Amino acid sequence: MSRRSGEPFAAVDVIRVKRDGNVLSDQQIDWVVDAYTRGAVADEQMAALAMAILLRGMTPGETARWTRAMVASGTRLDLSDIGRPTVDKHSTGGVGDKITLPLTPLVAACGAGVPQLSGRGLGHTGGTLDKLETIPGFRAGLSGAEFASQLRSVGAVICAAGDDLAPADRKLYALRDVTATVESIPLIASSIISKKIAEGTSALVLDVKFGSGAFLRQFADARDLASVMVELGTAHGVATVALLTDMNTPLGHAVGNSIEVTESIEVLAGGGPADVVALTLALARQMLDLAGLGDVDPADALRDGRAMDRWRALVRGQGGDPAAPLPVAAETEVVRADRDGVVTAVDAYRVGVAAWQLGAGRARKEDPVSAAAGVRLRRRPGDPVRAGDVLLELLADDAARIPAAQETIRGAATIGDSLQETLPLVRERIA
Amino acid sequence: MSRRSGEPFAAVDVIRVKRDGNVLSDQQIDWVVDAYTRGAVADEQMAALAMAILLRGMTPGETARWTRAMVASGTRLDLSDIGRPTVDKHSTGGVGDKITLPLTPLVAACGAGVPQLSGRGLGHTGGTLDKLETIPGFRAGLSGAEFASQLRSVGAVICAAGDDLAPADRKLYALRDVTATVESIPLIASSIISKKIAEGTSALVLDVKFGSGAFLRQFADARDLASVMVELGTAHGVATVALLTDMNTPLGHAVGNSIEVTESIEVLAGGGPADVVALTLALARQMLDLAGLGDVDPADALRDGRAMDRWRALVRGQGGDPAAPLPVAAETEVVRADRDGVVTAVDAYRVGVAAWQLGAGRARKEDPVSAAAGVRLRRRPGDPVRAGDVLLELLADDAARIPAAQETIRGAATIGDSLQETLPLVRERIA
Repeated sequence: MSRRSGEPFAAVDVIRVKRDGNVLSDQQIDWVVDAYTRGAVADEQMAALAMAILLRGMTPGETARWTRAMVASGTRLDLSDIGRPTVDKHSTGGVGDKITLPLTPLVAACGAGVPQLSGRGLGHTGGTLDKLETIPGFRAGLSGAEFASQLRSVGAVICAAGDDLAPADRKLYALRDVTATVESIPLIASSIISKKIAEGTSALVLDVKFGSGAFLRQFADARDLASVMVELGTAHGVATVALLTDMNTPLGHAVGNSIEVTESIEVLAGGGPADVVALTLALARQMLDLAGLGDVDPADALRDGRAMDRWRALVRGQGGDPAAPLPVAAETEVVRADRDGVVTAVDAYRVGVAAWQLGAGRARKEDPVSAAAGVRLRRRPGDPVRAGDVLLELLADDAARIPAAQETIRGAATIGDSLQETLPLVRERIA
Repeated sequence: MSRRSGEPFAAVDVIRVKRDGNVLSDQQIDWVVDAYTRGAVADEQMAALAMAILLRGMTPGETARWTRAMVASGTRLDLSDIGRPTVDKHSTGGVGDKITLPLTPLVAACGAGVPQLSGRGLGHTGGTLDKLETIPGFRAGLSGAEFASQLRSVGAVICAAGDDLAPADRKLYALRDVTATVESIPLIASSIISKKIAEGTSALVLDVKFGSGAFLRQFADARDLASVMVELGTAHGVATVALLTDMNTPLGHAVGNSIEVTESIEVLAGGGPADVVALTLALARQMLDLAGLGDVDPADALRDGRAMDRWRALVRGQGGDPAAPLPVAAETEVVRADRDGVVTAVDAYRVGVAAWQLGAGRARKEDPVSAAAGVRLRRRPGDPVRAGDVLLELLADDAARIPAAQETIRGAATIGDSLQETLPLVRERIA
């Protein structure tokens, strides 16, 4: 009774279908995504639908169609003429997760083209662009022509998605963020995969994290999300593989922005923390395999400097100075061990929140971030300690930010007599 | 992490509580209703919360607090000085439900004060104010002073609720209407009861309808709603009783606006359809009982003309001319019986939709309604018919509206060899 003239459906009728636990038709999905993008479905109507989707779920068929509709809301890039097989990586986000920084030039150095469209951080996990923007001169906003040109010349680009890629997703994501409708597996999966389809990559490796510092804490939930995304990517002609990786402990020693760039450069120089190197190589091998370059060993490119050369070319290509010194924090404070023993855990969630409180992250999209703030893990699980040794270092531009972070991080590192056997960082592969 | 300065809660956190099936605290409910009213919680956030409430439910404690918060969003009238015990009636809405028109002056004639705040129709059930506004000169918008003054002098007033009564409900109801979140029992109950508490009545009789023409078709759902409302009213100091009444068949012979006024006047004159008289008297007896006037027989006041006198005073008090002729439809069309037999059913839903299509109702709040359009039941269930007899009459201002209504109403009246035993109109009383 409330259909507006000129529209094939009324929003209330579409919402009611999902509210009552029924399956949306292809036509309803196409219409509601398109009508929302052009403003004919109001924010409050999409919010009610998103909550109904979160609580009622979507079938694989609905999720696939929803994804297709999000791609169709904008441009789909064509990267077939860049002269390299293209492959991208997406992480669901973790604490200290700087892997994109060493991985992208590494895979490019091995012969693939890596079209990385990245985001900024919101909440306790950092954003790749926030990290790169601590490099003097670095530009994250490229035109479509600059994007394709650098992909052709360097084989690697890390930039923000243009406004014309899946605009429905951009609008919907902002809405979900303020309406507590983020945590829906079909909506998360379609959001991620629609952007990757639109960016034009031929292949995609997903790093789906579980554990205290991950968006999805439970392994089973992360596994569900990974399966849905692999299915979605594959159905849209993007060869897709997922690794399920442990995010109970931060990755590496550095959690912040400029300090994660520094740690990434250590990896590109052939050093760096063992877990960061291991995950970088594991993801690189999956990417090269999907790109038809499975016989290339990425470890060689780290050892012989080719990955570092490619990093420098990437940074210079986007206006940055790879040799410029990075910002350093003015204020530091340390957390010390209160007993002898072995570090048994460093809780990723608490470290992530503390880094955020110190200024490394933002509470609202429009907030600035501090380049130098963050947390440094001076000991990681398995490391022996003596009472009084420094476990964690808190870094900030402003000393006033330190007390709240100290409060958060208290007890994040635990010390015992011995460390139980640990599970591998990469827990499962889904193809 | 997303709390705005100055607010004790973040909307996303409140939404998340209900989304995850948990119980909202009193403080969260008070805040979210107040913050929504003043615009600090956005429409899209309240829409997501309303959908979560619809799908997850609210406990009796949450519903009571929600109702209290809606009352607190505006003024609560004090009717203690009008010199009569006050009692009001609310119907959940039905096809041909003109009962408020004869009932209000009837109960006033018996000694109670009836502060009727009514609404306009939306969809297939009519609105009391749309009906009254077909009387030349009648004003539904009264000031608070006019409202109290007429209640004191006449004992009966039927008008629109002022903007200062439960403004949270007004805003929330408009939102629910466009987001498919109307059909939540806690939200329906709190919407109805909050307005009745705010209008200041001491007692309340609820006419909760079930059946094809009712908002809630299932008896069990209507019973749930009635129980929640009786509990809510009582908890807020309003003596509350509910009757569960059958809405599978339209009430009376007239479904529309001016034709329902005419039928109401027949009842006030001591005549009128048996079902309308019976329901009017049943509700009047409940109201008088709650008002401490249980020994007064309202049937006397219909018989001896006191109810009619009070009707005329009510209409004149609100600017109307009770003797003026009412609008008559320009176009009519009939539906005839195709066989001999007995009418076994006249489907309220189809009659309601047809009347709406003929112009008696509105699809959007801003639409006008036709005074004279509607449907007249020339035969009701139980009436014998011969093939070719007129069953239904369609009335419209514009002949172009008739074909769609004819299509809708086809088969609404069914004819059989005999009518099975019928169930009573008033099925149950809940106190």
